Amino acid sequence: MVATGSETTKKSPRLDRAHTLMKEAGIDLLLVSPSADLRYLTGYARGTSERPTLLALQPDREAAILVPELEAAGAAQIAGGRVVTFSETDNPYAVLASALGFSAGGVQPSRIAISPQMWAEFLLRLQATFDATFVSAAPLLGRLRAAKGPDELELLERAGRAVDAAVGQIVHTQFAGKTERQIADEINRLLQDQGMEVAPWGPIVASGPNAASPHHLTGDREIREGDTVILDFGCTHEGYQADITRTVHVGEPNDEFKRVYRVVQEAQQAGVEAAREGVPAQTVDRATRRVIDDSGYGEFFVHRTGHGLGLDVHEEPYIVDGNELPLQAGMVFSVEPGIYLPGKFGVRIEDIVALTEHGASRLNNARREVVIV
Amino acid sequence: MVATGSETTKKSPRLDRAHTLMKEAGIDLLLVSPSADLRYLTGYARGTSERPTLLALQPDREAAILVPELEAAGAAQIAGGRVVTFSETDNPYAVLASALGFSAGGVQPSRIAISPQMWAEFLLRLQATFDATFVSAAPLLGRLRAAKGPDELELLERAGRAVDAAVGQIVHTQFAGKTERQIADEINRLLQDQGMEVAPWGPIVASGPNAASPHHLTGDREIREGDTVILDFGCTHEGYQADITRTVHVGEPNDEFKRVYRVVQEAQQAGVEAAREGVPAQTVDRATRRVIDDSGYGEFFVHRTGHGLGLDVHEEPYIVDGNELPLQAGMVFSVEPGIYLPGKFGVRIEDIVALTEHGASRLNNARREVVIV
Repeated sequence: MVATGSETTKKSPRLDRAHTLMKEAGIDLLLVSPSADLRYLTGYARGTSERPTLLALQPDREAAILVPELEAAGAAQIAGGRVVTFSETDNPYAVLASALGFSAGGVQPSRIAISPQMWAEFLLRLQATFDATFVSAAPLLGRLRAAKGPDELELLERAGRAVDAAVGQIVHTQFAGKTERQIADEINRLLQDQGMEVAPWGPIVASGPNAASPHHLTGDREIREGDTVILDFGCTHEGYQADITRTVHVGEPNDEFKRVYRVVQEAQQAGVEAAREGVPAQTVDRATRRVIDDSGYGEFFVHRTGHGLGLDVHEEPYIVDGNELPLQAGMVFSVEPGIYLPGKFGVRIEDIVALTEHGASRLNNARREVVIV
Repeated sequence: MVATGSETTKKSPRLDRAHTLMKEAGIDLLLVSPSADLRYLTGYARGTSERPTLLALQPDREAAILVPELEAAGAAQIAGGRVVTFSETDNPYAVLASALGFSAGGVQPSRIAISPQMWAEFLLRLQATFDATFVSAAPLLGRLRAAKGPDELELLERAGRAVDAAVGQIVHTQFAGKTERQIADEINRLLQDQGMEVAPWGPIVASGPNAASPHHLTGDREIREGDTVILDFGCTHEGYQADITRTVHVGEPNDEFKRVYRVVQEAQQAGVEAAREGVPAQTVDRATRRVIDDSGYGEFFVHRTGHGLGLDVHEEPYIVDGNELPLQAGMVFSVEPGIYLPGKFGVRIEDIVALTEHGASRLNNARREVVIV
């Protein structure tokens, strides 16, 4: 229950911007739990657990971070600001309220924004502690994190090159006779050999009819001659994500596959070309969808066109119908249309692109033509 | 927005027990998001994302699971019950309410319990959708999952043997001159070589003065002659966790280290012996704390004695002062007292134990005497 003040509070442009956005949104307390949001704001990259860690931001006030006493040393080194600790038998929420100067029947915040990935258990406890309106900080944090800086772009490019190289290598493997899981393990090895951390959502290897399920759970199906195989995988480099999808064919493909593949390829290209500064995110979705609709396969494109990517593998800007967020230079997102024919096969092609003032620049450059494995 | 009924709903003793506990607690709707809770109840082991997946349980009703349309195939195979899907532009919470027969101004649930690790963003959306009282399902799910069945115990024992073997091998490594991170990487390799998945919370390797920080973030400090090194690590086997801590010494230890080590060793033994069917969980905490208090080091034992372990690495029964949950046969938890002398060193010894009608049986049997590396 000790509050240890740090002598010098680090000046942080990211925290300054968060304060500005909070004022605009009328938020007087922003609470951020361990997540990409916390890492972005403070560099503190600890995982989440049943003992709450909460960064507390208030406009024009020094940041405070609530941590379990047994993690105080790490938090003080990294997070900056004032460290507030609680013991194993304290009520952490009461400790936080008191450290921030709030009290039951006394001063209370009026509008608290919470980071979207916080555990719901913590939100229930916070709602029982503070007499305030609770809102999601997702819009604020989305705006804060969507446009990447040069240092972030460099890490994303590095991760992108690693998945490109893994694609280049895996297509030389014999697929027929191996299971989906064996191919997935091999992809992870190729990424680890490059010093990358593998993504916890782990390669999607969807073969044959499984390729018609966009988020197939990689399993023990043995890959056979004549199969389509969707390979969708990523990795992490200093917290920044990569994500790529390529669709390969085991042996010579038939005409239907070639036709579908060509449509997806054209749709993906149309999406990349539609991405321009100032246009709403949904414009990119509409561009890929138009190509697929026009081909007659519209009903088989069952997901959005893409998602932003940075410290999270899915973040703003979401490339989906209804998202009017204007695209801006520095935004990084996937363009990944697909066509899924139930019982038969599926095709998806995904690249990450970074938006510049001259349009979208691909961070993935692995071969996009049909590859026969 | 399609509800696909499965022809045969799997009978599940776990779901039946959940229904019984819901009735006892007056809960008419239990919502469980991807987590160990969902895996325990249904076997569905998908990770969480911004697209909500929610298992909905109501007493005496068929289970329903809300999933994004693009994940319907996997959910139908594994989760059992009725699969309710939503498209990329639907409001998933409205789809769920309607599928369960609830409507604004019409029938509403009165008391909804949510799984504790659900994203807070989802809880805010649920609170805006349902006119109900929201409570944490942690007590219910804790009771449901705390006592392990024979199949679960077998997996926990297997994972326990793997970390024991890794301890047995790592102590033959040269520590002096290596960094903490190098030792951590080596431990993970030893676990992967045994077919285990490494734990995402990663080995804690805390050397020299870092060993005085119980949850030290493993870093680039070079280990030197004369250092104490705390090794705290785990792995996962088919979802079930292992967790062990041993404290080693680089070169011959001094008298203070030997004294502290002996106290921790005695405290750990006292904790294991105090674990009996029917006694409250806090009894085990008091037993370890008494030994350390009597030695004069009480103020340096800054954390609880332990935590339950199963599909989560931290779960009920928490071995902490104030937890009156009666221990029962089948419960599996850690006993891990420690003493941390700021600026000097720390010692912690941790074993997982399984409670039987004859007392606690250790799942870890790596050497508990001081090991010199």
